[in-house]
Amino acid sequence: MKKINVLFYLFLLFFVQAVSAQQKPKYVFFMIGDGMGLNQINLTEVFLAAQQDRNTVFPLAFSTFPYATFATSYSLSHGVTDSGAGGTALAVGKKTKNGVIGMDSAGTISYKSVAYAAKEAGYKVGITTSVSIDHATPASFYAHQPSRNMYYEIAQDLVKSNFDFFGGSGFLRPDKNAKNEQVPSLFPRFEQAGYTLAYGLADYKRIKDKADKIILMNVKGSDSESLKYAIDQQPGDLNLAEITESAIESLTRGNDQGFFLMVEGGKIDWAAHANDATTTIQEVLDFNEAVKRAVSFYEKHPDETLIIVTADHETGGIAIGNGSSRLNTKLLAQQKVSQTALSQMLSDLRASGKTVAWDEVKQVLQAQLGLFGAVKVSKEEEAHLFAIYEKSFVKHEEEAAKSLYANDDKLASEAVKMLNTAGSVGWASGNHSAAYIPIFAIGAGAEQFSHKMENIDIPKKLAELAGWTIDE
Amino acid sequence: MKKINVLFYLFLLFFVQAVSAQQKPKYVFFMIGDGMGLNQINLTEVFLAAQQDRNTVFPLAFSTFPYATFATSYSLSHGVTDSGAGGTALAVGKKTKNGVIGMDSAGTISYKSVAYAAKEAGYKVGITTSVSIDHATPASFYAHQPSRNMYYEIAQDLVKSNFDFFGGSGFLRPDKNAKNEQVPSLFPRFEQAGYTLAYGLADYKRIKDKADKIILMNVKGSDSESLKYAIDQQPGDLNLAEITESAIESLTRGNDQGFFLMVEGGKIDWAAHANDATTTIQEVLDFNEAVKRAVSFYEKHPDETLIIVTADHETGGIAIGNGSSRLNTKLLAQQKVSQTALSQMLSDLRASGKTVAWDEVKQVLQAQLGLFGAVKVSKEEEAHLFAIYEKSFVKHEEEAAKSLYANDDKLASEAVKMLNTAGSVGWASGNHSAAYIPIFAIGAGAEQFSHKMENIDIPKKLAELAGWTIDE
Repeated sequence: MKKINVLFYLFLLFFVQAVSAQQKPKYVFFMIGDGMGLNQINLTEVFLAAQQDRNTVFPLAFSTFPYATFATSYSLSHGVTDSGAGGTALAVGKKTKNGVIGMDSAGTISYKSVAYAAKEAGYKVGITTSVSIDHATPASFYAHQPSRNMYYEIAQDLVKSNFDFFGGSGFLRPDKNAKNEQVPSLFPRFEQAGYTLAYGLADYKRIKDKADKIILMNVKGSDSESLKYAIDQQPGDLNLAEITESAIESLTRGNDQGFFLMVEGGKIDWAAHANDATTTIQEVLDFNEAVKRAVSFYEKHPDETLIIVTADHETGGIAIGNGSSRLNTKLLAQQKVSQTALSQMLSDLRASGKTVAWDEVKQVLQAQLGLFGAVKVSKEEEAHLFAIYEKSFVKHEEEAAKSLYANDDKLASEAVKMLNTAGSVGWASGNHSAAYIPIFAIGAGAEQFSHKMENIDIPKKLAELAGWTIDE
Repeated sequence: MKKINVLFYLFLLFFVQAVSAQQKPKYVFFMIGDGMGLNQINLTEVFLAAQQDRNTVFPLAFSTFPYATFATSYSLSHGVTDSGAGGTALAVGKKTKNGVIGMDSAGTISYKSVAYAAKEAGYKVGITTSVSIDHATPASFYAHQPSRNMYYEIAQDLVKSNFDFFGGSGFLRPDKNAKNEQVPSLFPRFEQAGYTLAYGLADYKRIKDKADKIILMNVKGSDSESLKYAIDQQPGDLNLAEITESAIESLTRGNDQGFFLMVEGGKIDWAAHANDATTTIQEVLDFNEAVKRAVSFYEKHPDETLIIVTADHETGGIAIGNGSSRLNTKLLAQQKVSQTALSQMLSDLRASGKTVAWDEVKQVLQAQLGLFGAVKVSKEEEAHLFAIYEKSFVKHEEEAAKSLYANDDKLASEAVKMLNTAGSVGWASGNHSAAYIPIFAIGAGAEQFSHKMENIDIPKKLAELAGWTIDE
């Protein structure tokens, strides 16, 4: 029996090692839909099916992952987190105060993120987003600042990080510090630190094979705050999938040490703050396109790749269904531009100096939202919109409706609200909610993500799986 | 090497068998929170922590289960399911039309539920709920009827089922058929079929050791529609945990063939239809008490027990957070009675014949909801409530606000709405929503519940795990 025992233990050892070896991820995608709660995902699935007159769901690339669960998102200071504390929790595995980036609540202790831990372990690191690179979520992975609004100081930390790839729309305050003082632009500093700056995809393609470290931004002259909303993008506009693809390409070129790549779909949150359902859905789909790039990579390296898709918080307290059991989400496809773009249209019309007739405005609302067309508008609803038109177009009063990331035209936001209501969508607020955040996982170690957890458990589990050391 | 190979395969065989043997559940708890979406659970956790001035979460018995995921809930006919199609999906593993119980959409084919499959396989079967035994969710497990409203016909199917234990408040129409004809009461029929009828817990205790099959109902003279809301219960009132405990006791007495026990927390849905947050929370906690009984049993039989906790759909499109990042859910504890009970109080007051002063009504709202006390009421809000008071108490107009399961006093529902708003809760509607349903699992085979699925996959997986045969 002794021999059998030895064999038994040898086998067990082999088995355990085989499992461990299989689980250790070499290529890690950490993909964050900012503001993408479970209902945002569900609504997108329902919307896709509704386009084909089905009342089922058409799954997204990530919603079919073999593991799916959810986590709490509260911060150390608030029941409802902001993207600073939320991003920090996901990046470093510690709760902090709302507004803080990669530090404790007092802003005195810097925490090491999984990105730094990966870098330490010899992995290449990429940090990408559809908003600015110094925004709260990406910042949480490379910066340590007491306030998310210290954009200049956050961007300074980018240099110290020595990470390999950054991608996003650009930088919000590259030459103005937290004291609001004009300071030398950071762009030359980035270059001195060895980064090649690429403005747009064509520029990236030109430099990619010669560059060591890269910062990919939108083309010069475009909005540095964020990429255009997916619903407003034209062919040729830089999008998140292209940034993700470029990051993968850069991080794997001449590298067999593995990589950690964070990808943020940053404007799901912005659209949800504005309670703009169709734009939210299109942002989720845009994020899903980025996830598809990760999945393509996973398919080539299934044993060594781990993809985690999650969110920092839910935004808007969105609900699918606002009364009837028959959903009309198909109507949401009538919307052709974001509320923000519609605002601009209406604002331009108003600023034209000419008298703008109500019929002219109605035509815009029909063309862009389907109102007065596929989307029925009752007499009371028209009276409501007309009253706003009269105030803002005739008397030039109360023109704007402010949300966190937009100062939209009030007529636009009320008209979008009408479409949302007709399209079976409800919203509880223009702020984040405390709803659980979704987690989807596929690949090496994905089975760790199969039970309800805290948001801080996600990077902890990831670090443990990969053998990286983050702060206890 | 040959010897090693043999040993290797022997070990593998042993290992695979060990795993299989471990996974087959002998005792199955299928626990359904009707209308209990992810946000209802989350809100309850947040509420518990808030009572101790924490902005964290205090988990429930089931939210710490080692597996947690979610599922879609749409029916064959609607994006938003009702409890008929939702219950049927969970019971038989097939989607059907809203309103149907255990049949196809046309009402011609009867589907076999997991309860019948368990019975066939020699398990004892129990079906329990906090509402009436003929209600849609429990009915889906034992009945086959084209409409959930055919309460008499549903209850007739109970006799055919030959299941071992039924528990709930009672029966809605034991002597009136779908044609609205007066027919002989079903209660003697139940007894002829071998069921011992127990009215209340004391009665159950008296008969339990002598009875073969049991139907446990609420004491005679109490409401047959449902048990009292947990928030309104007094000591001695029958509750869901006691029904669960009794079911476990009955199903295990002299039985080592295992059991299948369905437990429904039926009034989470009712409270959510009324958009009554505190009552919803207390119903989730009441359901959690029933889950605790199952967990106690699991702890004694961990290798053979499987507990699944899920829901048929979400109700109300509830959101946690309606603007501020600082949640005030602690305020919800100011509510001392359900909106329905408050309605009765106000209605009684109004019916007293005396002139009821506004101050007297305010005192009721303060005592029962904390309004004008811990919950601040602005002048505008008071004016709003006063206007309703004037209409309903002085002019006797527009007294009621109807929800699916209640015809509540309008002043009560508006006052509860005010408390909900102050307590950081938002609602999208008085109907169900299409939100994903939660799934939590522990025990033998629980690892099967680790990815997003369809509601119909839950009974399919369960049948497969237990080796039961349901319809393909």
